Formats: sequence, structure tokens, C-alpha cells
Amino acid sequence: MAKNIIIIGSGAAGMTAASTARATDPKANITVFTEDEDIAYSPCVIPWVLEGKTEWKDIIMHTPDFYAKEKNIDVLIKTKVESVDDTAKTVTANGKTYNYDSLVLATGGKVFIPPIQGIDLKGVFIVRTVRDGKNIENALKDAKKVVIGGAGVIGLEIALALINLGKDVTVIEMMDQVIPRIADKDMADPIQKYLENKGVRFIMKAPIQAVNGTERVSSVTAAGLEYPCDMIIFATGVRANIDIAKQLGLDVGQLGALAVAPTLQTYKRGRLVPDIFAAGDVIQCQSAIMPGPTMSQLGSTAVKEGIVAGKNAAGEKVHFGGVASPWVSVIGDKQIAGTGLSMGLASWYGIEVVIGKAIGFTRARYYPGGKELIVKVLADKTTHRIIGAQIIAGEEATGRINWLTSAAIEGVTAEDFIVRSENAYCPPTSMVQDVVIKAVKDLCINLKSQ
Amino acid sequence: MAKNIIIIGSGAAGMTAASTARATDPKANITVFTEDEDIAYSPCVIPWVLEGKTEWKDIIMHTPDFYAKEKNIDVLIKTKVESVDDTAKTVTANGKTYNYDSLVLATGGKVFIPPIQGIDLKGVFIVRTVRDGKNIENALKDAKKVVIGGAGVIGLEIALALINLGKDVTVIEMMDQVIPRIADKDMADPIQKYLENKGVRFIMKAPIQAVNGTERVSSVTAAGLEYPCDMIIFATGVRANIDIAKQLGLDVGQLGALAVAPTLQTYKRGRLVPDIFAAGDVIQCQSAIMPGPTMSQLGSTAVKEGIVAGKNAAGEKVHFGGVASPWVSVIGDKQIAGTGLSMGLASWYGIEVVIGKAIGFTRARYYPGGKELIVKVLADKTTHRIIGAQIIAGEEATGRINWLTSAAIEGVTAEDFIVRSENAYCPPTSMVQDVVIKAVKDLCINLKSQ
Repeated sequence: MAKNIIIIGSGAAGMTAASTARATDPKANITVFTEDEDIAYSPCVIPWVLEGKTEWKDIIMHTPDFYAKEKNIDVLIKTKVESVDDTAKTVTANGKTYNYDSLVLATGGKVFIPPIQGIDLKGVFIVRTVRDGKNIENALKDAKKVVIGGAGVIGLEIALALINLGKDVTVIEMMDQVIPRIADKDMADPIQKYLENKGVRFIMKAPIQAVNGTERVSSVTAAGLEYPCDMIIFATGVRANIDIAKQLGLDVGQLGALAVAPTLQTYKRGRLVPDIFAAGDVIQCQSAIMPGPTMSQLGSTAVKEGIVAGKNAAGEKVHFGGVASPWVSVIGDKQIAGTGLSMGLASWYGIEVVIGKAIGFTRARYYPGGKELIVKVLADKTTHRIIGAQIIAGEEATGRINWLTSAAIEGVTAEDFIVRSENAYCPPTSMVQDVVIKAVKDLCINLKSQ
Repeated sequence: MAKNIIIIGSGAAGMTAASTARATDPKANITVFTEDEDIAYSPCVIPWVLEGKTEWKDIIMHTPDFYAKEKNIDVLIKTKVESVDDTAKTVTANGKTYNYDSLVLATGGKVFIPPIQGIDLKGVFIVRTVRDGKNIENALKDAKKVVIGGAGVIGLEIALALINLGKDVTVIEMMDQVIPRIADKDMADPIQKYLENKGVRFIMKAPIQAVNGTERVSSVTAAGLEYPCDMIIFATGVRANIDIAKQLGLDVGQLGALAVAPTLQTYKRGRLVPDIFAAGDVIQCQSAIMPGPTMSQLGSTAVKEGIVAGKNAAGEKVHFGGVASPWVSVIGDKQIAGTGLSMGLASWYGIEVVIGKAIGFTRARYYPGGKELIVKVLADKTTHRIIGAQIIAGEEATGRINWLTSAAIEGVTAEDFIVRSENAYCPPTSMVQDVVIKAVKDLCINLKSQ
């Protein structure tokens, strides 16, 4: 008899799980439930749609109709799952009950909004779905002053998009640096400076305390000061959406997200739940760098997890490894990228870090058009292993961070990296010795002097 | 007493060895002998100077005067070393004798010109030094039809430069594909096609048999046919320049270049020569991919070797590892890059290869401006380890090839790469799942079906 596979959530993890399950088992009945009205899009692209570089219709790659016709997958949009019964193995939605043999929880994350007054006023937005993006786009027509709550990469990308649209933009951030969790202050500061030069105003070390106004937002209070605005966009980070998981009594890990096995099976009171899988922003991962849990919450990670969950839900047995979570953000002419542990994350693991840093160019010094390239590499003081890196570059940060990710994942020490690593060289695309290697050399010098 | 360090050769290996020796030993007497008149430049940039994208004066980074004043290194240009005596430990040049404690042979390579008639005619050029480049530049003023002998990356880069200068360009290649040794035919063919569309004429499977003319070249004969031309540029590959090494009786390896220890010390009748080091195009390396020798002959490799030779010549003990020899060539709007073994090199090692290939874009599908990206990955059929890769891309090939190089060097299998590897994602710089990963997935499927 054909297997019933149910997936809750239509983000990168959910839709990838559905497609992968279909590729694995051509006969299964596959159903996706989602509260969203659009599916199969990358929310990461929203800042660029707002700026007009691409359009909503272009970023939505497939419709439910496509999935029905091409992949024989039922996608029920605008459909909230009311309950899951893991004894009867049923999902209830729209008052109907659906049986499952395998269930994949891909319920994603919820934008965290601080529990303060005024968040229900008109003019308060989050940025997560295409619907959120369209709401912002509409509101921007009448808005001059915009406050963005949170200076993570999404907040910064939107800040620049809005500056380019001619808005007055203020970013309010609780910490003393932009991109606080995953970038170090010395690497984040140049990006803040760049955005300040573009006209973005930053209010740092300022927790947002209230959204003020009657009916519509008229100002925001942060660290005791009031900032007038026509709208506020919260880009204050994402928490795992564990509502259904909680209702099921599934185990939640130390970081507030679902604990999962390498097979992406969930746990209940410490026991593996064989038929309930989870993938995407709702789970916590194992770090590939240090023994311990970590939150990844990247689209790229969600896709990888979706593949594993989809295969296993369809009866295969494949594993999801640890994550270094490489990321990159394009902010105007600048790219900032990172991988593995930042100083902050390393201190969460209780490990001491030695750093190396180098500044150079993306091309040979004598080849025109080279852009500045700053590479910072972090090693574990005890093992000398490369545990993280960050890059600021005018171009070509992505490949470099993937390269360093590979070295970090394979457990390469700084010293071994110098002996073993090589870089391809052509004057228009790199220096003869890439700045990545120069940074690791600096790291080796600093490790010696410890 | 201060150590005497003598370096023969002023290319990337020689000058890096000199600077590194100085950084290692501030007191040593360091002398560089070179037949060249310019030093401290990257010959790789010559095609772009010919095209006018940069200038001779800009590509020469330092003068002998700079080395004398800033680094206390004597550089004797236009100076041929007449003999070396490894018993007396002396070098003779300009009729004078110089003592050495450590000698570094960085004599580089010689452009291979087939032993045919007419190679002494006017209008016959090689491309190796700035002088060669200037000679070509001068001759181009009166030349309309140019033949390029050899379709390696230098030949192709020059071919496009000359097309952009409005010349009639014919590339004559002995093999049945461009970039024959290091690229596979399926990856080389699109580059040939691209150049053909730009107007380059290719004559394939055609060994050059004669250069014809009286005094000046008037045509070239290849595979029995005659091709009229005003000049011919030989870009037919480089052989190790082992003249001095031979005179010294140093051991030459299977590939016709100097055999060296990991310390880059040379051998004489199987015994380590403690005080004669070698670096750059004159040596053969160990492959980091397969047990066995390989020729690297890249500027990036020469720099790495120069560092090791320079340190060890100055009294340190560091090692030079194996090489995967990643390379990249920019040919107009196309970049082609490779690492590790090509199909041809793999067959030289006697190993069977399974391949994977994927085609996609350098950016998210829905982000404007993405360029085509083709990735091919090679695995050893027995071990499933990734042993090589090639990339054609409109942009950002370099970082991706360095990433795959890191995986190949660390001995990662295709299957482990899928479980462990991650890529940073941002719509303007990559697809959510990079094409590199898609190519390795295809490889895993093909490995399974073996």
C-alpha cells in the first residue's frame, strides 16, 4: 500500500522534503500543509524585491498547481494544522483528518518580537514571507521614516534597500555591533560604517522598549529615547516555531528548538520517534566544529535537512551531519561572509580563540578593478584547528568562505592549512597568494606567540 | 658569521625565496642572479598588458634598487651563472666567484619550441618574460595575421587579447582539444567554441612542422597545410630549465624536472644534498591527490615553494606538501578553472575515474545577472575520493575551485562531501544549493551505478 507522507510547512525544508520524498518513493501519497499563501520561494530575496531588483512573481518558483501536476504532491495553502495525534498517526486540518505513515515537521521559525506595548499598531511589520514583503511594500508608499528593529543581515539588507528607495532609515540594535551573533565586532564595524555613509542611522546598545502611537505607529522608544517613524520593521531574529511539537510533547533542546537524531527523527522523553522527522528552522543542529548544539536557520541548511528528512520519511536511511553554517550577505558593494564560530559563539562553547587577519585585494595588485578583501580566521587555542572565519570583500566572498568551511569541517589545523592549502591564481580573480592564506599565516604567527 | 645565501633565478620562486630568507635571517648575505632584466612581476598578466588593460610599468612591482635598499638583497640582473661548484660551494658569474652556504635553484622553465626549421626567423616569439612581451607588443604594430602555437591557457588568453586588438588569429594545437593536459575535452570544448565565436580560428590535431619564410616568417606548416602569418607566438608549454642542475649532477625525476625532498633539498645520486634547494618550475612535486610525481608550474605553487626554500635555506626546517595545483584562466567573459587530476592525468596514474556534472547559475535563479556555471567533479572509482574538478563560469570560479581543492587535498569522498559540505547562500552570489554540491550529488549517483 502506498505510504502516506505528511509535511507541515512549505519553506525550504518542507518543500525540499516533499520533492525528495517524491523522488525517493514514486508511489507515496505526499501532502504538504502550510499557513502561507505562497510556496517555493526564497525569503532571503525579499530585500532585493523591495528595492525593485526583481519582482514577486519572479521569486516564486512554483505554484501548488505545479506540485500537483508535475510531482503529484498535494499542497494545501492557507491551511493551519489544528492538531497532530501521534498514537492514531493523524493530522487534523480544516476539520478533516489525514493519516500519516511518516510526518515531517518543517514548521520553521517565528520572527521574535519583543513583548512590548504597541506591537499591534498599524505600521508594525515583520519580514518572513512574501505576504510580509508585500505588506511592507504597500506601506512604504506612504512612509518616509522607517525604523528597522535589529541589525542582523536581513535588517541591514533591508536598510540599504530602503535607503536606495529614498527613505529615512534608522536601525535600532540592542547590542553594540551589527550582525551581533555570527560576526565579530571588528568585521561588523566596517559594514556599519559603510551603511552609515550610505545614510543609514544606527542606534546601538538600544533595546526597543515601546512602539508608540494611536492606531498607527508614530514613534519607537529605545533605551529611553524616542524615534519618530511612519513604520517599523522587526528583523529581530527568528525562534523555532515549536507549537505543534510542544503539543506532541517532542523533546526540545537547550537552544529552544527541536532535538533531532542524525536521521532527523525527533525524540519524545529521550526516545527516538521513528516516524516523526523534523527539518529547517524548527530544529537545532549539531555543530560540525565543536561538540554541542547550534542553531543554523539558513536557507541552505534547510534545503540540506529537507533532503535528509524527505529521503528518510520515504524509507531511506541517510544522515544529516554537523553544520558549520557558512553565510554571506550582500550589502550594496560589500559582501560579508562567515563560517563556523564567531568570537561570541566560541565563547558560548567555552573555548579560547586565537585569530589571524589579513587585508588585500580580490585581484592581483597590478590588475585593474581589484576590490578590498579582509579575511579573519579563528583557531582553537588548544588544538590549533580552524574553527571559524569571516570575510569582507567587494566581490567573491562566497567561494572563499566555502573553502574555509571545508577546511574547518575537515578539522584542518592552521599549520596544516599553510602546508597543504593551495589557491588558483589568475590576475583578474586573485592575488598570487590569496588573502585567505595570508590570514591563516598571520594566525600561525599568533598561535606561536601564545 | 653571516650566512651566504645565493638564489639563481628571479621568478616567483626565486624572489619569494630571497624575501623569505631575509625575513628568516636578518643578517644573511643574500644574492640573486638572474638573466632577466626585470624582476618581481607576474608573467601571467602578459596577455592583459598586450590587450592594454594594464601597463608594463605597473606589473613590475619592485626594482633591484628596492630589494637592495628595503631588503638588503643584491639582485644581479642580466647575469648568467656560468658554473656552480658544489664542493667548493661557489657560484661563478660575470667572471667572479661567490661563496654560498645555501644555494637555491629557481631557474624556472624554458618555453618548449618544437625542433623544426625556421624557428630562428624574425617574427617568431615566445611568451615568458616582460622582454618577450614587449617584443611581441612591438611586432604586433606591423602584424595582421598571427599564429599562436599551442592552445594552453596562455595561448588562449593571448589569442583573445589579439582578437580584441583586431588581429587575425589562428591557434594551432597538436591535440584534439584546447587546454589539453589539465582540462577534459567536454570542459575545454565550450571555451574553444567561445573563442571561435569571438573570431579565433583553431587548427586542431595539427603538429607544427615548419616555420617558413626568408628572414621573416611568412607562414607556418602544420599537419601538412600552410597557414600564412606575419608572426608566430609559441605557447607550447614549459620544460624545467635544468641546465645548471645537470652540470651539478643533481637527480632529475621521471618528469624531466629536479627531484626534491619535502624540504625542497635536492638529491645527487639518491643522496640528499643538504645545502642545495630548488623551487619553482624547475622541480617536480609530489601530488597531493595520488602517490606519485606531478608537474605544477604555476605561479601560486612557485610562491609556496619559494617560501619553503627560502626558510630552509636560511636554516629553518619546514616542509612543502603535495600539490593539487588548482588553476584558473579568465578568457573574456568566461572563467575556466581546474584542480587535481583531469581525466588525462588520472589515466597517467592508472586510475579509473567516475565523474559527476551539474549545470546551474552563479546566482539564485530569480536574481538578475546570474551567469552559467558548469561544474565537473572526478572521483577515484576505487576509493570514491574526490580527485579533481573543473569549472566553467561567468564569474566566481576561483573560490569554488579552491573549495573543491580543499576537499580533494583532505581526501574527502564524494559521499562524505554530500553529508558534510555546506555552501554560503545569498541570492546575489549563489544558488541555495551551490552547483558544486549538485555536481557531487551527480557523482554519487554515478558511483552507485558502477
